[in-house]
Amino acid sequence: MSRENDTGFLAAVWHGAGDVRIERRPRRPLRNGEVRLAVSFCGICGSDLHEYANGPHAIPVGKPHRVSGETAPLVIGHEFTGVVTEAAAGVAIAVGTRVAVEPEYRCGSCEACRRGEYNLCIDMGFAGLMGSGGMSEEAIVPAYMLHPLPDAVTDRQAAVLEPAAVALHALRRGRVRAGDTVAVAGAGPIGLLIAQLARVAGARRVVVSDVSEVRLALARDLGATDIVDATDQDLAAVANGVDVAFEAVGIQSTLDAAFASVRKGGRVVLVGLCNGRVSLDGFDMVNRELELIASVGYRDIYPDLIGMIASGLFDPSRIVTRDVPLTDAVTDGLERLRKPGDDVKILINPQEKGERS
Amino acid sequence: MSRENDTGFLAAVWHGAGDVRIERRPRRPLRNGEVRLAVSFCGICGSDLHEYANGPHAIPVGKPHRVSGETAPLVIGHEFTGVVTEAAAGVAIAVGTRVAVEPEYRCGSCEACRRGEYNLCIDMGFAGLMGSGGMSEEAIVPAYMLHPLPDAVTDRQAAVLEPAAVALHALRRGRVRAGDTVAVAGAGPIGLLIAQLARVAGARRVVVSDVSEVRLALARDLGATDIVDATDQDLAAVANGVDVAFEAVGIQSTLDAAFASVRKGGRVVLVGLCNGRVSLDGFDMVNRELELIASVGYRDIYPDLIGMIASGLFDPSRIVTRDVPLTDAVTDGLERLRKPGDDVKILINPQEKGERS
Repeated sequence: MSRENDTGFLAAVWHGAGDVRIERRPRRPLRNGEVRLAVSFCGICGSDLHEYANGPHAIPVGKPHRVSGETAPLVIGHEFTGVVTEAAAGVAIAVGTRVAVEPEYRCGSCEACRRGEYNLCIDMGFAGLMGSGGMSEEAIVPAYMLHPLPDAVTDRQAAVLEPAAVALHALRRGRVRAGDTVAVAGAGPIGLLIAQLARVAGARRVVVSDVSEVRLALARDLGATDIVDATDQDLAAVANGVDVAFEAVGIQSTLDAAFASVRKGGRVVLVGLCNGRVSLDGFDMVNRELELIASVGYRDIYPDLIGMIASGLFDPSRIVTRDVPLTDAVTDGLERLRKPGDDVKILINPQEKGERS
Repeated sequence: MSRENDTGFLAAVWHGAGDVRIERRPRRPLRNGEVRLAVSFCGICGSDLHEYANGPHAIPVGKPHRVSGETAPLVIGHEFTGVVTEAAAGVAIAVGTRVAVEPEYRCGSCEACRRGEYNLCIDMGFAGLMGSGGMSEEAIVPAYMLHPLPDAVTDRQAAVLEPAAVALHALRRGRVRAGDTVAVAGAGPIGLLIAQLARVAGARRVVVSDVSEVRLALARDLGATDIVDATDQDLAAVANGVDVAFEAVGIQSTLDAAFASVRKGGRVVLVGLCNGRVSLDGFDMVNRELELIASVGYRDIYPDLIGMIASGLFDPSRIVTRDVPLTDAVTDGLERLRKPGDDVKILINPQEKGERS
């Protein structure tokens, strides 16, 4: 923590595609409803990589985001957890409270927010993409994003709550029930967490496909009952008519594989963010009475997940393959994940000093 | 009725594309579990038209259907109702009982049937397409297809139960609730019944689009709050973000219109039977967290519909635009619907003598 001096704090700041800098940022006073955190961990998400590789995609450039009011350059990282170091007047949270951050902005007044579907807020956005995030020694977030953590949930677990929330929301969207059978096309962090949580939800079969042996082995460790090497095996043949299939890549071939994997009356959950139009067999879809259910973000899920972890149901930090100090977040984090490899989830630790510090 | 002589009975028999003949058929003895009916009315469905125009599509030719055991030539018509005239030994239904026919075959033993999803039976089929139907003075059906009719439901209403079942199943698939807003792309018989039943289900807005002024006027009569002439108006602009949109045509443009018509978090129900692959905007689908839900046939719905009609909630026979004697079923029924025109539902009356009899 660097609060005690006035040289600001160290952060990973997105300036443009290929240009994320580990640099000091000035500290600003809190505004109404805000809380300052000392960040414990911040995970690297696929969307961070996209912004780094060829952004901006979601990061506002020029025109400020309507909720955050910010534009680039801004601190990236939306999978973070920390300890409260300061709260604005009237915010009922004690300094020292360990908290997970649910980084979805919400305007609170649009039709979706009023319906409680705040993941569909008209000003949908994430702290760490559309506004300052948590790949940083310090972060400022609105208090509504915070969920206090019990002792039974570790900081490293809390740092993986965000992708776990995406996964559990997808399972809920797909109405997975105990006793169901499930297929997951794609064993990235989200696909792996879906597989892990599907077992927690009582799925009796969980078939996972990917092209990486390491990821498939991890899927097996996390509870997948069947793994499918998509380089030479057919997911649908192994799945053999599951109740629910998850598309966790966002491309046509895995969408086709997901449809081919479900039974009559089955459901395909689209979690991967497709680039544009995709196609499906409309005749088959009606004839087999299928459903294609999209899932985006999460809502009303952090407290449930925290309770699940605290009660020992699962450990989302098992998908973490590497911890990296903030000073090395670009060289040992973003760059490593950008290249083909077997890392799954990398956590950035702002409190540890790295080789480049 | 012609049971009293042995010259058989008059029926509309599909021999091939463009070749439906009104001809006499020999009467056969009942088999186990079967019931013979004097048919009161039989509606003409779009699928009858497809079989007549350029079939066979569903009608078995050469290879017998696995449940019906029949091949063409066979009696068409699956939207029928009648009076029991004979029941096989052990079938507990009295001669003289007025019944509606739920014409879906079910094997009873496949995975879907065991799950209760008999509309997805591995041997899915309809009496009147995959086996002998009801456009006929007499029909033989398995007893499990029969639903006794209370006095409060007329024969003409009962003859429209089948498309009404398709419509109510679609509404249930779409999870339409009282207070919801609904759009319907296509005001054919199914689209009109969806609109009518959506109002019964408490939809506060029901927006219907079609290219026929007559059908749109009927939609308005049946309860549509907004009608959209698709020749020069945009369904989505009028719908303005409904909760649920129904695609009741089965083509790309109406599917696109349905997606454009729903709100964030909304649902599109695919009822129209598409010819093959269709496309959708996968990015938009995830971003707005939409669902595409197919609906086919019906299950567990006839008793509910009969009760709804009996209690005065709605009258499905309001979509009937013409009654035609069986003798004129081709010339005044199939041929009339095959050409562009304003007829919606034509009922064939086998007990009335027409000009050609």
